Amino acid sequence: MSRAVLHGYFRSSAAFRVRIALQLKGLDVEHVSVQLRKGQQQSPEFIDLNPAALIPVYVTEEGVTLTESLAIIEYLDEVAPQPRLLPAAPLERARVRSLAYLIACDVHPIQNLRVLQRLRTQFGADDDAANAWARHYIEKGLAAFEVELARSPKTGRFCHGDTPTLADICLIPQVFNARRFQVDLSPFPTVLRIVDHCATVPAFERARPEAQPDAI
Amino acid sequence: MSRAVLHGYFRSSAAFRVRIALQLKGLDVEHVSVQLRKGQQQSPEFIDLNPAALIPVYVTEEGVTLTESLAIIEYLDEVAPQPRLLPAAPLERARVRSLAYLIACDVHPIQNLRVLQRLRTQFGADDDAANAWARHYIEKGLAAFEVELARSPKTGRFCHGDTPTLADICLIPQVFNARRFQVDLSPFPTVLRIVDHCATVPAFERARPEAQPDAI
Repeated sequence: MSRAVLHGYFRSSAAFRVRIALQLKGLDVEHVSVQLRKGQQQSPEFIDLNPAALIPVYVTEEGVTLTESLAIIEYLDEVAPQPRLLPAAPLERARVRSLAYLIACDVHPIQNLRVLQRLRTQFGADDDAANAWARHYIEKGLAAFEVELARSPKTGRFCHGDTPTLADICLIPQVFNARRFQVDLSPFPTVLRIVDHCATVPAFERARPEAQPDAI
Repeated sequence: MSRAVLHGYFRSSAAFRVRIALQLKGLDVEHVSVQLRKGQQQSPEFIDLNPAALIPVYVTEEGVTLTESLAIIEYLDEVAPQPRLLPAAPLERARVRSLAYLIACDVHPIQNLRVLQRLRTQFGADDDAANAWARHYIEKGLAAFEVELARSPKTGRFCHGDTPTLADICLIPQVFNARRFQVDLSPFPTVLRIVDHCATVPAFERARPEAQPDAI
């Protein structure tokens, strides 16, 4: 048994999610920085670890390699269940997961670094065009997220009730990205209220990109 | 209590996933077709059902609306656990989920209809350029999926062992898309072997796009 390892990158939304989950659960792991801007995710060693050339990668204490941020977080929630990142009841779990996937499937993958890079290489997109693409998907996604939050009595101080869940874990990195792309967040008051509340929680603060040793 | 309803579309990968899960579990629901090509997902009635304007949407027997295919399938697996679509052990569940998300997060959202349409409107992409974009992400995703399958002793007749899981449920619709985009699948022999095996399972066959009443 050795210490678990998270291969991540300070600015990666997906790695940021796993950092929040680890912090909420008080799990201490070794952090290895994979420099995406330098293409380190394409190195033979990294491809051997994760053939998809994506971070995060989590290596358990037993040496088992896990990929995909949400699979890692569900695993952590199963093996270290306190505090729970998903509610107990199936309908509640479904609401939290649907909010999480609205970001993790329908926003983030379409605006991440590798897709914006391909817009440049395949379509000659400049910074303005790539940023407009990213903003389009972030705005559409957050608009739907806001409606879901604002109209549900299940929304509390966090996205679901008064304790952090997988939904908040996906929301906070997406809002970090939204700000990088200068998305106007004023149409999303419930999102902003929850983001402000998460900022008061040390686990979210410690997981922030700017707080990581590899932040540049 | 009334009958559960699945709002879907014959060709939607995400709806196809939920149809496979329902068929595997022997759950009979009402199917409502949302004609994506006609923009019915943008109608006020549909936006009220799902502000993200995406299918599938599942309305439970109690009238609760659930969105996001993987949230719906995890819900079904929790309330109707036989046959299980996820293994019991956390590390096994993580493997199945990571395979599922490799497709559901890192391939499908980047090559779906609305993204290809935006490539046309924002970058003037023609059919060839849009198809090349889709093929690029499908090929990269399936290549990683193939390596993960081929190198793991946990791969069986299906992606994980000898019973269908969430991983197969995501794989089959993605391969359907790959064939539509004329991706050469010969570099992915393990994927093809599993696809062929799934084709012998009535639940997968009944869920196929061509077998749906709204198929055109």
